[in-house]
Parts: sequence; C-alpha cells; structure tokens
Amino acid sequence: MTAPLTDIDQFCRAYAERASSVRHRLAAMTGADRTRILLDMAAALTDHAPDILRANREDIAANPDLGPALIDRLRLDASRLSSMADAVASIAHQPDPLGQVVDGRTLSNGLRLEKRRVPIGVVLVIYESRPNVTSDAAALCIKSGNCVLLKGGREAAHTNRAVVQAIRQPLEARGIADAMTFVDTSDRAAIAALVRLRGLIDLCIPRGGPGLIDAVVEHARIPVIKHDAGLCHIYIDQHLDDMLDQAVRIVMNAKVQRPGVCNAVETLLVHEAVAERILPRLAQELSAAGVELRADHAAQPLMPGSVPATQEDWRTEYLALILSVRVVPDLAAAIEHIRTYGSQHTEAILTSSVQAAEAFVAGVDSANVMVNCSTRFADGGEYGLGAEIGISTDKLHARGPMGAQDLTTYQWVMRGSGQTRS
Amino acid sequence: MTAPLTDIDQFCRAYAERASSVRHRLAAMTGADRTRILLDMAAALTDHAPDILRANREDIAANPDLGPALIDRLRLDASRLSSMADAVASIAHQPDPLGQVVDGRTLSNGLRLEKRRVPIGVVLVIYESRPNVTSDAAALCIKSGNCVLLKGGREAAHTNRAVVQAIRQPLEARGIADAMTFVDTSDRAAIAALVRLRGLIDLCIPRGGPGLIDAVVEHARIPVIKHDAGLCHIYIDQHLDDMLDQAVRIVMNAKVQRPGVCNAVETLLVHEAVAERILPRLAQELSAAGVELRADHAAQPLMPGSVPATQEDWRTEYLALILSVRVVPDLAAAIEHIRTYGSQHTEAILTSSVQAAEAFVAGVDSANVMVNCSTRFADGGEYGLGAEIGISTDKLHARGPMGAQDLTTYQWVMRGSGQTRS
Repeated sequence: MTAPLTDIDQFCRAYAERASSVRHRLAAMTGADRTRILLDMAAALTDHAPDILRANREDIAANPDLGPALIDRLRLDASRLSSMADAVASIAHQPDPLGQVVDGRTLSNGLRLEKRRVPIGVVLVIYESRPNVTSDAAALCIKSGNCVLLKGGREAAHTNRAVVQAIRQPLEARGIADAMTFVDTSDRAAIAALVRLRGLIDLCIPRGGPGLIDAVVEHARIPVIKHDAGLCHIYIDQHLDDMLDQAVRIVMNAKVQRPGVCNAVETLLVHEAVAERILPRLAQELSAAGVELRADHAAQPLMPGSVPATQEDWRTEYLALILSVRVVPDLAAAIEHIRTYGSQHTEAILTSSVQAAEAFVAGVDSANVMVNCSTRFADGGEYGLGAEIGISTDKLHARGPMGAQDLTTYQWVMRGSGQTRS
Repeated sequence: MTAPLTDIDQFCRAYAERASSVRHRLAAMTGADRTRILLDMAAALTDHAPDILRANREDIAANPDLGPALIDRLRLDASRLSSMADAVASIAHQPDPLGQVVDGRTLSNGLRLEKRRVPIGVVLVIYESRPNVTSDAAALCIKSGNCVLLKGGREAAHTNRAVVQAIRQPLEARGIADAMTFVDTSDRAAIAALVRLRGLIDLCIPRGGPGLIDAVVEHARIPVIKHDAGLCHIYIDQHLDDMLDQAVRIVMNAKVQRPGVCNAVETLLVHEAVAERILPRLAQELSAAGVELRADHAAQPLMPGSVPATQEDWRTEYLALILSVRVVPDLAAAIEHIRTYGSQHTEAILTSSVQAAEAFVAGVDSANVMVNCSTRFADGGEYGLGAEIGISTDKLHARGPMGAQDLTTYQWVMRGSGQTRS
C-alpha cells in the first residue's frame, strides 16, 4: 500500500482507523496471551533474518550520502538482529503492566474503589535512525496492550518494512494484524496528518532531532510525549576532598564511553576554586581520548589544546567527542547556567559536600539528577525499569526513562450495592 | 494592566515570563510555607468579602442576558464566599504532595535511586463559569508548588479580578506575587496566545464546553489535560434479581440530584428483557421529578409522556433535566453504544450478575466505571483524593478526578560514590 500523494490525510486516517478497530480485542487479551505474542515476534525476527538483512542492504545501497556514523546506526548484521530478537524476548518476560491496582480503598459508605492500569489505546511512535527502535517500540506497545503505528525514517524504510512484516505475523495469526502497522509512506506530510487524528490516536511519541520534534509539536492535536535532546551537564563543585581521581573518571566516562547518546555529557562546569587542580589533568586525558575542547576564557589557559567556546556552544548537543567547559564562581552560577542552556534531561554534581549536593538536586529542574556518578546512568535498564521506549524530556505522564508501565493509563472502578449520592 | 489589542502575544508572554521567573522560589519553599500561604489566602477571602461581593454584583449587572441557571452559577453571597474560603483552608491541610518518594531502590553497583514528586512548573487554568474555580485552582496549584495563570470567563471578570487581588496578597507579602496571576484581558485571542508559550508554560488545563476545549487543542503547543464533556451512561442489565427498587433509586439520583454537572447521567440503556418491568416505573418517577424523556422506538411505548429520541440525542450532554433512553438487545450492544457515543467520562452498570459486571468494566474504556452505584460518585472528594481541579477526560498523566498530587511530576535522583558505566 503506497500513499496517493493527493490524499495523505485519508491514507493516514485509514491506518489509524484500522488500528483503533482492533484495540478493544488487544486490550481484552490476557498477560499470557501478550507474552506469547512477543515470544512469537522474537522468533519471527530470527526466522525472517535473510529477508530483513536483504532489505537492510537495500537501504544502505539507497543512501550512499549518509556518513559512516549514520550508516553504522542503520546497518544490521546477524548479531545485531539477534540482539533485537533477544530484546523482544526480554520484554516478553517483563512483568505485565496491565491490571495492576495502584490505589484503592473502601469508602465509609461501603463503596469499593480501585484504580488500575489499563492500555492507553493507539500509540504512534515517530522515530529516526536505528531499526532496533522498530522492534523495541512495537514490543513495548503490544506488551502494554496498545496498538501501535510505527513511522520510521525514510533512510530505513526497506528495513523497517521487513521487520514489521516479520513481527506482525503473530498478530496476523491471531486476527489482530492491525494492532501493529508500519506507516508505509515517504511523504513528509504524513507526520502532520497523523498527529492531527484526535479521537483515533491517543498518544504520539516522537524520538529524534529538533526538526522532527518541532514538526510534531506544531501540528499535533493529540497528546505528545517528546523524546528530545539531551544537553547534559556535569558540575564539579569546590568541595572535592580526595575525589579528584573520581571526578576525572566520571567526566571521562560521561563524555567518551558512548558520545552519540542523549545521556552523554556536553558541557562541564567547574567551580573556580578547583579549576586549576582539575582542568589541566582533564584536558590531558580528554585530548588523549580524542575529545575536542571548547573552553571559556577562564578555562582555556588551564586546558592546553582547547579552543574558545562561543555562546552557541552552551546551546549545542554535540553527540560527538566535543566538550564545552566553563568556569563558574559558585554553585548558584552553575545552576543558573543549567537553567538557561540545559534541556532538563540529565545533570550531575561531583562534590564531597552534602549541602552542595542537596542544593544542586533541589535547584536543577531536570528529569535525572546525579550525585557523584556518571550521567550515563540515566537509562531505563540501569534504573531497573526494563526496556525503555526512550527518555522523555517532557514533564507530563512520563519523565526520564519511559518503560512499558508508562505506556498505560488507569481506570477508576467503583463497586457498590445500590449507593446514591446525597 | 489592560491588553493592548495590537499585541496580545507580547502581553500574554509577559505574564508567563513573570510567573516562570519565580517558579524556582516557590518550588524551594517547604510544605509548611505553602500550607501557611493557603491559610492566609483563605483569610484574605474573608477579609476582602465586601470588595469581592461588590465586584460580583458588577458582573451580574453587566450580564443581563445570562439565563437564570448561569446567573446562579456566577452569583456569590456571604455563604458561598465563606465556602470558598473553607475549601482553600481544607486544601491547605491536605498532605503535601511534593517530595513524596514514589519509587526507588539500591542498584547492584551501589547507586541509590529515588523517584520523587516535584512541581510541574507553571500551570495555565482556563475555565468558564463559577468564581469558586478561581480560588480552588489557585490553591491547588500553590499547594503543589506550581505557579498559576488563571484565565476565567469574561462574564466573571470583575469577580475573578477581585478574588485574585485578595488571595494574591499572601504571595505578595512573601515577594512571589507573580506565582499567581489573573490574566486580565477579555481579548479572545489571549487563549491562543497563551497556549503557544512552549518553554514558559508547562501545562494547560482547560475546563469548559466543546468550544473552549477545541480552541485550546487547535492552538496548543504545550501539554494539555482536557476537562471536557461528561456524556455519562447507565446500563440496566437483564440480570436484576430483586434490584428493581435499587435501579430506580440509582437512575433517579444520577439524573436528578444535580443535573448540571459532568457526572450526571444523560443516556439510559436498558436490556430488552427488563424494559417492560422497569421503564414504566422510571417514566413515572422521572416525569414527576420534571425530567423530559427522549426514548427510542422500543422504549417510547413503555414510557408515557416521552418524545422520540433522535440520533442527535445520543451525542448530547444535556446538563439539564432531560434523559435519553434506549432499549438494547444485550450487554454487547450497550458497550457498543457507549463506545460510539460516550465521552469516556463515567458509565455505570446495574446488574446482579458478576459476569456482566466484569464484562462491562473490561469493555468500557472510560475514566470511571461504576457497578451498582450512581455515576455521581465520580468525584475527587468522594474518592478520597481531596479537592479536585476538575475531572480529566484525557488518558495521559491524569484521568478522572484530578487532585493536587496530579499537579506534580517527578524527578529521578541518583546518588553514587564515583560509579561509571561500563
């Protein structure tokens, strides 16, 4: 099915209507049913490996202009595909998020009240980059009883189509194929058309760069939970006691261990009282690891090889081996910098002072705040939440790592014996 | 301060910027501070009673075209004002929703993780009708550490201005007056301007009719939790045993006790097997209570005095002494009717069958589902949640009665001793 470009609205509506039409049947399944479906999805990924890898080679051949980093994100091989299947199987074995009673009481008039988790309905996931997002997002939505529309990037179109064809089969076999759909169009207007479908789609989760996020926010008439930029900071406080080595290790880990992800550090703030002690050593180790340093006027003399930072650097999520560095007069200035330039994703303080740690945690309005550990720990798996559909940079419904439980809403159920209100 | 009509965007932005500029100071206050502010707000309402009542008389004089029901909603007197003050004092004494740790664990690497409630930030409440919403919404937002922008209906402008002038004083005295603002303009473009202020306003809560809700959804670039229509249903099942009297009492209560509110019943669905037993008696009691009956072809002969229902009746929230009635062949048809025409607010089943009750609860995707009690119990106070800012008809973040706790988000805090990720 390809979109007639003249009627992308109708094309998208048809997808959403088909998903909505089976949502009650998916929601009525037991947890065991959904676990079984996910295990079958994992098996289907393995069974269809040749088709998926062939489609992936087509995508790579069709996108000769992508740089090596993007090609690496797009490329699948037997090992990566096997990891995708493992992830789906692992989601299958997570606890069922549905039916959980999260609040409840018996009222004085005898009414018995309970608040319990139910599916949201139809979820639209819009994403760029890696094909594993396709199977992860699909598995998390089905696990939580939600129908899912998957809108991936055009550079991965063949791969995503082949992945969905495979993992959709367990749903087809149960007569609810439309519970999972690959929105198969490269028409850029599809996103705007989809996010207007109030009443048919209950939630949109966009994962990607600012262009994608802005397009979704501009057109959306349905609830959106954004998975936006991570412009993460580490602040090294004046109170360091014997923590100098530890601070260097944490900064190195946060910058170098995996620079292309949202919880890597982008800006380092250092209290002026410890700048001379720590910055030369950091400059040496970071440079040796290939990190480009962009330093403010106070930091630059202490960091050989650094270049001057501009205002623009404070606003930039590099997602690369680049670190901006600023010397601040005190903790309050560090917090003020983070409030001004941060993306409310993840910030860390390195300090030996209880007072400084508490002031930082209270003053920084970010989804994740770390004391004396790497920003890289901001992750659903590390938090023990299971697989995540992403890291929400919004404050409503889900904030930070967002797992299967966050793909549920709740229903209040009240049971009585004839009570009326007076 | 009155809006220059030529620049309503700038006018609204200035309000939001001032609120945003004090949000960290409000968030830094202790629970005891916020309780004290709310008690002072309650006292201020009493102290300023003459001003508020005078302003209210101006509104009533300025709106001679409002019908008696709307005038009654708008009118304040000493007793109603005293109830408003009592409500604020009661919110003051509710448990503090902030700082509550709702999840947490120590990870195997020694990292200590906690998920704790923090304020959302700046909340915009857009509402029509009763002036008590002004003080309730303001108190709930301050209780939960949020700055609040109040945009009330133009018919209550004098009253709302006077109420806010009074309850803002305790904030002025503490140097954070801008934590609460009455958006003082009757320019209709203000709503569109306000809900576009991404980055300055964190949440919009619209309470009102479909026109208001649609305008907010159309223009919003910030998260919205809608407080929309309540088109509530009662389904009387075929399994009734000796519950006939109970069923009549519940229908009467749900329709007559307070017909103008969102959890009053609007449509009655009756299984055909019990229609002859119950509809004549219901017709008699409802008519005696002044209820107009609009019945389908099967129900009409059983309900003397009823008029024929049209398709439009199934879609109408009367908020008045009118009830539409339809006879259905079975439970599945009742669920299908509710899915087609309902607003996912509150539905009730009256039955003696456990199986029918469970099938109804599982099949109806509404915020509140009642078994053998009145729809009127869908209420934050009845649920034991304390005062409510309204009843959310959305599924994200808050669903059903929305109290102070739902005006919070959470933050993940992780404390370590030098851990890095491998």
